[in-house]
Amino acid sequence: MGDIKRVAVLGSTGSIGRQTLEVISALPHRFSVIGLAAGKNTDLLSRQISQFKPGFIHSQDKTPPTGECEFLSLEEIASHPKVDIVVMATSGKWGLKPTLAAVKAGKQVALANKESLVMAGEIITREAQLSGAQIRPVDSEHSAIWQCLEGEKQKAARIILTASGGPFRGYSSTRLAKVTPQQALKHPSWRMGQKVTIDSATLMNKGLEVIEARWLFDMPFDNIRILIHPQSIIHSMVEFADGSVKAQLGMPDMRLPIQYALSYPERLENPTLPHLDWDNIKELNFEPPDFESFPCLKLAIEAGRKGGTYPAALCAADETAVELFLSKRIKFTDIPRLVGQAVEEHQAIARPTLEEILAADAQTREKIKQMVGDNR
Amino acid sequence: MGDIKRVAVLGSTGSIGRQTLEVISALPHRFSVIGLAAGKNTDLLSRQISQFKPGFIHSQDKTPPTGECEFLSLEEIASHPKVDIVVMATSGKWGLKPTLAAVKAGKQVALANKESLVMAGEIITREAQLSGAQIRPVDSEHSAIWQCLEGEKQKAARIILTASGGPFRGYSSTRLAKVTPQQALKHPSWRMGQKVTIDSATLMNKGLEVIEARWLFDMPFDNIRILIHPQSIIHSMVEFADGSVKAQLGMPDMRLPIQYALSYPERLENPTLPHLDWDNIKELNFEPPDFESFPCLKLAIEAGRKGGTYPAALCAADETAVELFLSKRIKFTDIPRLVGQAVEEHQAIARPTLEEILAADAQTREKIKQMVGDNR
Repeated sequence: MGDIKRVAVLGSTGSIGRQTLEVISALPHRFSVIGLAAGKNTDLLSRQISQFKPGFIHSQDKTPPTGECEFLSLEEIASHPKVDIVVMATSGKWGLKPTLAAVKAGKQVALANKESLVMAGEIITREAQLSGAQIRPVDSEHSAIWQCLEGEKQKAARIILTASGGPFRGYSSTRLAKVTPQQALKHPSWRMGQKVTIDSATLMNKGLEVIEARWLFDMPFDNIRILIHPQSIIHSMVEFADGSVKAQLGMPDMRLPIQYALSYPERLENPTLPHLDWDNIKELNFEPPDFESFPCLKLAIEAGRKGGTYPAALCAADETAVELFLSKRIKFTDIPRLVGQAVEEHQAIARPTLEEILAADAQTREKIKQMVGDNR
Repeated sequence: MGDIKRVAVLGSTGSIGRQTLEVISALPHRFSVIGLAAGKNTDLLSRQISQFKPGFIHSQDKTPPTGECEFLSLEEIASHPKVDIVVMATSGKWGLKPTLAAVKAGKQVALANKESLVMAGEIITREAQLSGAQIRPVDSEHSAIWQCLEGEKQKAARIILTASGGPFRGYSSTRLAKVTPQQALKHPSWRMGQKVTIDSATLMNKGLEVIEARWLFDMPFDNIRILIHPQSIIHSMVEFADGSVKAQLGMPDMRLPIQYALSYPERLENPTLPHLDWDNIKELNFEPPDFESFPCLKLAIEAGRKGGTYPAALCAADETAVELFLSKRIKFTDIPRLVGQAVEEHQAIARPTLEEILAADAQTREKIKQMVGDNR
């Protein structure tokens, strides 16, 4: 059955990281954990170290767990010769540098960090072409597209990115202005981290996925269409030149795309993964997205089209606005308002370097804080 | 762009044959017609000969059209060295011998004739393995499965064969006893020949497709599931070992699977083919098949499981019963009754030769006629 792949999980205490470790635990004859990196959840990281006994660790905590493992930087783990697959599950801009390091080292990169491609898609895809690194999407939507393209001799003619529509599908702007963080954190179909759950409620998440799809599949924005599909059973679709459409379906469970990114091109039986039950699926519904009530969608696509540092400014503005919303300092509808204003006022740079991207990020975070009078 | 493929269309005046010629007409830089064979529709065959100027023709008519083309037997055309792709669109058992000839000659066989695989699946798949012939399914369901399997490293774990349910979905047996040929010939989503349209109304068609799928994809009957999907947008699905499901979707138009069988592994732009319009697709529905009201489904699957000459008896009984229904000599519900009785009384032969299969066919036709007291 092939040998055991050594996996480094960067962001191991987050939602994707934990689910990655669940998949690896279920398939110990195929995968081992060689590296773990976490932010500040040292308790969980310590337990993960005890369980998986990685060779390398990284932690953002000042007093990281000790043990028999070597403490390395994120970039060192991501590019270490002993690592076969890097799972990039860190959140936000923290994923950028280690993703680039893994890509430059020619790794197989299971990419769950959206910001890497959104903020630096041009740099990362160029470096991947140079090094031969393979970027394997972990997002369920991009995994679906990747699975549908497998074996096809030609590019897709069109991508149909499905979206659950989030917990506030059908809400008017007036009603949206009143929603609380608690309501926004209740996603109807997916279990995910806080930031991405709020992004799913504003549909910013789907906008970012459009930008990712543009880079992952070299697809013009005009050929990427968003379709609301509340059941989250069809994870996305691809239309080919002849009009044939392929879709990938599955239970809304991130472990399936995570496992596929690890096992590709094989598929592995895993009894812990749920299967679709057609006795209980009576209908699948579709509707167009509501660009009026969910302006983040358009903001993201516009930033993606403009390119340069615009997507970095968008991401930074959104992350900052989401934090402000979660701490109840702004309304839900302030998120798109602030992001829109920040992106509009952004002084963009075309074809930026990584440093320029990170500078755009820092400037935009500052700007949002100024906009809401936050001087902490 | 590759050179021009020379296509022989056997059964050119039937529904699939005519649609094949529409596809070829739309893509003259990729395909040419080298052979045409028809039954008794000599007028249409003559017009097709004028239009496509084939090198070889065949006709069942006693006064076939003449012209600059050579008159050959079906088998001669199917195995002719100048033919690249054979489209097997003849109906019923007439497809068996030419399909076998094409397969033995190692051709690319675009197979629309259901009976070949249902009656002689074991012989045909064995011969294809020996010769290297490639059997490319033309049925929309099997084309969907084939497309979903493309590029996958492993076999499917399960096949989900979708079915429109036909014009009488939801009918009770009592109500079915009263339906007329005229009603049965109105299929809700597909334009097809008379025999297959009636088979779609009894669900015999779906049962035959289960047997075909068993041979085309080497899939145990237990792992083939039928799912009623009235819109006929999802043409079938495949579930893999990891629980991931792929589906192929498209407008219900046979020209798409026909074209794919011709162009494989490429996909060709063809402005005459319809595309799915997601502005107008609001829902896709699913329900389990009704084995009570549509006993043909179970009869076919049972005959398939038993193997030997049982499927040949099933096909012969069904074809004869459908003819009797179309000529208003029996009721719609007599079709499964007669087929069930004929199959039950059939003296089967295991691992039959082609001659034994054709003998089982002839005997069963006689038996059905005796059963209804038809001594014409």
